[in-house]
Amino acid sequence: MKSYQGFLIDLDGTVYKGTEKIDEAITFVKELEKRKLPYLFLTNNSTKHPRDVAEKLKEMDVPATTEQVFTTSMATATYISELKPGARVYAIGEEGLHFALEEQGLEIVTEDVDFVVMGLDRDITYEKLAIGALEIRKGATFVATNGDVALPSERGFLPGAGSLISVLSVTTGVEPKFIGKPEAIIVEQALEVLGTSKDETVMIGDNYDTDILAGINAGIDSLLVHSGVTKKEDLAKIEIQPTHTMESLAEWTLE
Amino acid sequence: MKSYQGFLIDLDGTVYKGTEKIDEAITFVKELEKRKLPYLFLTNNSTKHPRDVAEKLKEMDVPATTEQVFTTSMATATYISELKPGARVYAIGEEGLHFALEEQGLEIVTEDVDFVVMGLDRDITYEKLAIGALEIRKGATFVATNGDVALPSERGFLPGAGSLISVLSVTTGVEPKFIGKPEAIIVEQALEVLGTSKDETVMIGDNYDTDILAGINAGIDSLLVHSGVTKKEDLAKIEIQPTHTMESLAEWTLE
Repeated sequence: MKSYQGFLIDLDGTVYKGTEKIDEAITFVKELEKRKLPYLFLTNNSTKHPRDVAEKLKEMDVPATTEQVFTTSMATATYISELKPGARVYAIGEEGLHFALEEQGLEIVTEDVDFVVMGLDRDITYEKLAIGALEIRKGATFVATNGDVALPSERGFLPGAGSLISVLSVTTGVEPKFIGKPEAIIVEQALEVLGTSKDETVMIGDNYDTDILAGINAGIDSLLVHSGVTKKEDLAKIEIQPTHTMESLAEWTLE
Repeated sequence: MKSYQGFLIDLDGTVYKGTEKIDEAITFVKELEKRKLPYLFLTNNSTKHPRDVAEKLKEMDVPATTEQVFTTSMATATYISELKPGARVYAIGEEGLHFALEEQGLEIVTEDVDFVVMGLDRDITYEKLAIGALEIRKGATFVATNGDVALPSERGFLPGAGSLISVLSVTTGVEPKFIGKPEAIIVEQALEVLGTSKDETVMIGDNYDTDILAGINAGIDSLLVHSGVTKKEDLAKIEIQPTHTMESLAEWTLE
């Protein structure tokens, strides 16, 4: 197998499933660390602070620092900051989104806003949606962290960011700019953070529709691991295949 | 003009605009009352108790009793009750919806539900949406009071029932059965209440996409009055025209 110099790695379904470790993936990450091969965890979870994501990984014995976590909230904040440094942003989301926006020096406000940015918000209220809709109608640019419509949980599939975001797109008729996987934008930003080039980096994940399509859309190699969402039979119907497909990351021999 | 024996009359944009009366409409309703011609106010507002709607009308000097108000919540409750009397219903909505469901003898519950019914709910929470999504995925029938995506207010257009409802349809992939205008179902139920036949009844409203299409879909005559949403120039682009079109209801001479 090609000897990649950079690794973008999805989390849920790839490194763990909920609270359960995926041992082969953890062994693989440890091997990357041992060989000093750069890797970055790339997640569409917009709600968490990267420090807390790293903490969870460390508790699972996965070598991870806060700097090795890149969330879609961080990608979203970077995207807005590049368009308009110090922009006025109305944010509907959780701690991870607010942290990322503030870290990029963006102003979190409720009026005269340049951007309405929305992610998963389990404290959603009608008033938040009302302000978002009014500001988009007044001309604010609408940006969304990710389009995942369902959120796996122990209770079953709960509403994901994409379904909450549809309130604003349906009521205003304005589609948001999506940032998270499968968009190329989050992968391109992750490569900047990782410091590797497109042709030497691979995107690893369990979900064809987000992880693998993100790799394909960004023009980098991809590896689908059948430890989560996408099954062998799902892949059979798909035209553009991942670069590599494996049952588990134990199959991958680093050279 | 044809001498109709029954009148279905929209409220906002037709009889009043927000808190402002439309005098020609009020004079028209008073004339109906004087002549003992049956009329029913037909509204896609699912949130209010019909008693409060009648109260508001009376304060505006419009002759109206609670029995002359038919809301989409009442139509929705009737629809469910006809499908399954005493059904177990999980309801996401305001006072008007809960009242209507209880009046029809339906059981409002949060588990083992037969129907998930949703209308505008300005106290929406993630937990309500989560329960709705889980129950629809488990097989509950999904019913929605109305599909209006925007709600006019003094602040501008706020999210309407249809945009909130999209959270559940997007996350589950299940489209709800809509009951309110422009669906025929609410008009057919209103005719039952009014006690007049299709060929002697007219639907009066200001909104082509809801009021007039409801009349057309139900196969009854319609009258568009240009006191609200639909302007003359909007109508020019439309193929199926209302039976009658007027600047105000002052143009209508009852025989």
